Amino acid sequence: MPGQDPALLPPEHVPSAEELAAAARRIAPYARRTPVLRSEWIDALAGCHIHFKCENLQRGGAFKFRGACNAVFALEADQARRGVVTQSSGNHGAAVALACRLRGIPATVVVPRSAPRIKLKAIEGHGARVVPCAVSQADRDATTRRVLEETGASYVHPFNDSRVIAGQATATLELLEEVPGLDVVMAPVSGGGLLSGAALAARLRAPGIRVVGAEPEGARDAHDGLVSGTRITGRPTDTLCDGLRAELGPLPFRILREQQASVLLASDAATVAAMRQIFDHLKLVVEPSAAVALAALLAHRDAFAGLHVGMILSGGNLDLDALPWTTG
Amino acid sequence: MPGQDPALLPPEHVPSAEELAAAARRIAPYARRTPVLRSEWIDALAGCHIHFKCENLQRGGAFKFRGACNAVFALEADQARRGVVTQSSGNHGAAVALACRLRGIPATVVVPRSAPRIKLKAIEGHGARVVPCAVSQADRDATTRRVLEETGASYVHPFNDSRVIAGQATATLELLEEVPGLDVVMAPVSGGGLLSGAALAARLRAPGIRVVGAEPEGARDAHDGLVSGTRITGRPTDTLCDGLRAELGPLPFRILREQQASVLLASDAATVAAMRQIFDHLKLVVEPSAAVALAALLAHRDAFAGLHVGMILSGGNLDLDALPWTTG
Repeated sequence: MPGQDPALLPPEHVPSAEELAAAARRIAPYARRTPVLRSEWIDALAGCHIHFKCENLQRGGAFKFRGACNAVFALEADQARRGVVTQSSGNHGAAVALACRLRGIPATVVVPRSAPRIKLKAIEGHGARVVPCAVSQADRDATTRRVLEETGASYVHPFNDSRVIAGQATATLELLEEVPGLDVVMAPVSGGGLLSGAALAARLRAPGIRVVGAEPEGARDAHDGLVSGTRITGRPTDTLCDGLRAELGPLPFRILREQQASVLLASDAATVAAMRQIFDHLKLVVEPSAAVALAALLAHRDAFAGLHVGMILSGGNLDLDALPWTTG
Repeated sequence: MPGQDPALLPPEHVPSAEELAAAARRIAPYARRTPVLRSEWIDALAGCHIHFKCENLQRGGAFKFRGACNAVFALEADQARRGVVTQSSGNHGAAVALACRLRGIPATVVVPRSAPRIKLKAIEGHGARVVPCAVSQADRDATTRRVLEETGASYVHPFNDSRVIAGQATATLELLEEVPGLDVVMAPVSGGGLLSGAALAARLRAPGIRVVGAEPEGARDAHDGLVSGTRITGRPTDTLCDGLRAELGPLPFRILREQQASVLLASDAATVAAMRQIFDHLKLVVEPSAAVALAALLAHRDAFAGLHVGMILSGGNLDLDALPWTTG
């Protein structure tokens, strides 16, 4: 879970059209242009036409590489030399580590001691330094500040960062380019980097399109915050979607409000069922945090009847020894 | 398992360059141009550069749709009207059923009573008539002959058919077009439609390339037949690769000999491990019969050091409630 310590947040601004275009150019040599796949079977089930943008097939197995790559390669040479620091127990840490390896600069990832060993391995596998800390957000922030002071490195927040949001937006830019005429673009929402990037890309390339987030019922702060108009913080979460437990960041919240994005909810049971449909019919490995988007659509299928929906499958990193339909 | 009754075999001829090009044009409106994916992790493990052609993402979840589609759409209108008959307990039956539905003509699939219900559902789901028969090859052939006499339909063999082989060749044509400079093209071999198609595509587009099949140790008739120069029939098989239990057909055998293709073996345990690598690192659902190619490469990695290998992931149809690493 990322730090909400204001001292760690970069200057907030809404990325411009130029910044989105620059992000697309900047990451093109490193990121994969992921395929868009279809399933007639899932379309029949959903009663609409779904175009799946497969970010589980992105480098590192998640869209996170786009934002991290853009942020890391956007640094000026003298800044870059001092390296990059981030906090993450998930895909963002590994993505920053990979991007720094590609640029040849040092990366430090502050990781709570509770993080699964498999995630640590992914981060260390890319040559990053892992700094363990206690689980509390205060300790994570203190550790991060200490590392920043020691190294003079740059901080790259997982989502509340305009460079990261511009990077995530490139997934939707590619989707809109490949599939003209979409009615809706849909993506999971947690901190909000992916969905706010989608909203900005849609404003730029397909202004009439609806932007819809998907969130677990047990971590519905984005849904409730956008409905009430006030960002929600400090709520406990209860969901198996381990990538969706962060709170919507201030900058993504602002972008999503401006773009009139909405959020639909799905139960964890529906998410597991949707994940199984994706394995069975798209032949893709996705994590629960990605499948939540299909689950939310299926739970509200009347709202999508006959439409063309672009859906971002956000990632595919999970423990295959403990698939949720085999473990209960 | 397909019939070996000579009366059921179509005239054997090696498809020409023109027939391959015609197949590519014929199936283009219906088949997917599947993506080619990479994994740095698997490349590091293998010590070479593997370009995975993802036929698990093909319609119907397997390359089989290419050959079936070409055979069905190659029929003259008056022949086509009387429909198509095949024998299959696997992916070919569903592929013929789907191709016939797309052309709007009747399909009949003769299926042994031992076939898993999930396969029957896939065939019936495409609107084909399923005719059950006893398990023996003699009964399958007799039932097929009876249906052919009753209907006047055309028989489409799963692999010993030049239209089917030309269709399967299109997977390799696309791969060679997308990835110039490959040293090797590798695919699983059973009846031999996919591998002989690969050999013909390679002869046409990349004459210097090595063509390598992969086969389970417990169903090694293609390996032994190509080494000895005599096609092997009537051997029992013992492998969990349920798509690789057919015998190499006479026409594929002839093509593979002419093209000097070789076959490498893999144990089922190595195939399960390779399948898990593909799930974990490519984020793709593949069946054991597809993973055998990676397993065979890894078992002989010295032979591939530093090379660029195109590998056809042949299919992704399996029961996800019984993944081999969870069921032991």
